[in-house]
Amino acid sequence: MKIQLLTYPDMTLLDMVGPLQVWSLWPGAEVELVWKSTDPVPTDCGLPVVPTRSFADASETTDILFTGGGLEGTTRAMADPAVIEFMQSRGETAQWVTSVCTGALILGSAGLLQGYRATTHWMALDALSNFGAEPIKERWVIDRNRATGGGVTAGIDFGLALMAEVAGEDIAKAVQLGLEYAPQPPFDCGTPEKASPEVVAAVGKLFEGA
Amino acid sequence: MKIQLLTYPDMTLLDMVGPLQVWSLWPGAEVELVWKSTDPVPTDCGLPVVPTRSFADASETTDILFTGGGLEGTTRAMADPAVIEFMQSRGETAQWVTSVCTGALILGSAGLLQGYRATTHWMALDALSNFGAEPIKERWVIDRNRATGGGVTAGIDFGLALMAEVAGEDIAKAVQLGLEYAPQPPFDCGTPEKASPEVVAAVGKLFEGA
Repeated sequence: MKIQLLTYPDMTLLDMVGPLQVWSLWPGAEVELVWKSTDPVPTDCGLPVVPTRSFADASETTDILFTGGGLEGTTRAMADPAVIEFMQSRGETAQWVTSVCTGALILGSAGLLQGYRATTHWMALDALSNFGAEPIKERWVIDRNRATGGGVTAGIDFGLALMAEVAGEDIAKAVQLGLEYAPQPPFDCGTPEKASPEVVAAVGKLFEGA
Repeated sequence: MKIQLLTYPDMTLLDMVGPLQVWSLWPGAEVELVWKSTDPVPTDCGLPVVPTRSFADASETTDILFTGGGLEGTTRAMADPAVIEFMQSRGETAQWVTSVCTGALILGSAGLLQGYRATTHWMALDALSNFGAEPIKERWVIDRNRATGGGVTAGIDFGLALMAEVAGEDIAKAVQLGLEYAPQPPFDCGTPEKASPEVVAAVGKLFEGA
């Protein structure tokens, strides 16, 4: 199982690490963390990470192609011809083309969501229409060989769901137990429908300051 | 809010990135990722990360001291005098001494859980007694200024709960919504009590191969 994850500056680290932690337990997984070079890149939470392959050295084909999201870093990646070219070239032949959070906007910019049902972070959901995708308000969406997850923490659910789809429920269940994934969120406010208007308003300010 | 996170080789990356992603949105957060040097360290899921401070350059005091867990990497850290010395020196004055997953065994080795209620990954829970701690089977445990989370994914719940305790519920709720934390695990098997005996047995094999 060959897995390529786009590893770009200022990405939201948890978008990637959720599915990566799940998929790293995939028997026979070969993980490539891909960027322009293998110099460290900053992430949005202060921990720099080190890509393991450059675009030039990445395998020419992959079973899973993945990108997470972020704020300004994602906007820059969407407008970067080198990123778009890489995503298009691998996306054309990948068995699965996938994203978490606003990573879907990068897939969209590369033309990879045209005509597909897809999801993303709740704040960005409407933007999917700009790329010819049909926005779906679900935790994750699988449409043919496109698999997209919602915002940030959705990557864990998405990662396990895709693993179950591809490798079967037995291994996905073992990974879920291994990662002790029996979540107990301290509050019931993880979607804008469930949160109070005050909490929804506070999120905008939070991301301005980030 | 000064936060120091032990960033050691072969740690389980999601143990750290769960709370780190939450706490990076803490207004005024100063995050230090601390290890012996600032050379990149490998993690258990194939993504190397870069510590931002050496033990020598880390702030002498911190508000939150944190360590995540792992497999062999954690065992090595528990037996490493430089790690123990660092954890003891910061743990003595930290406002909060914290861990996720088998990070609790590192706190224990540094003598920081003696007489405290604490939790860790379900596979390691009994081992807490070796360090004079009282093992508690909960998603997270706060006992005086010790805060410990269960296995891997528990770090998100733990991170939000500690933030609510220290900074108040308003900010923690905004972060929870910002990270779209409304989990939908694909299976109901995240604890050994809920999983089938076959799934429990499969986890042992999974970690042998990891």
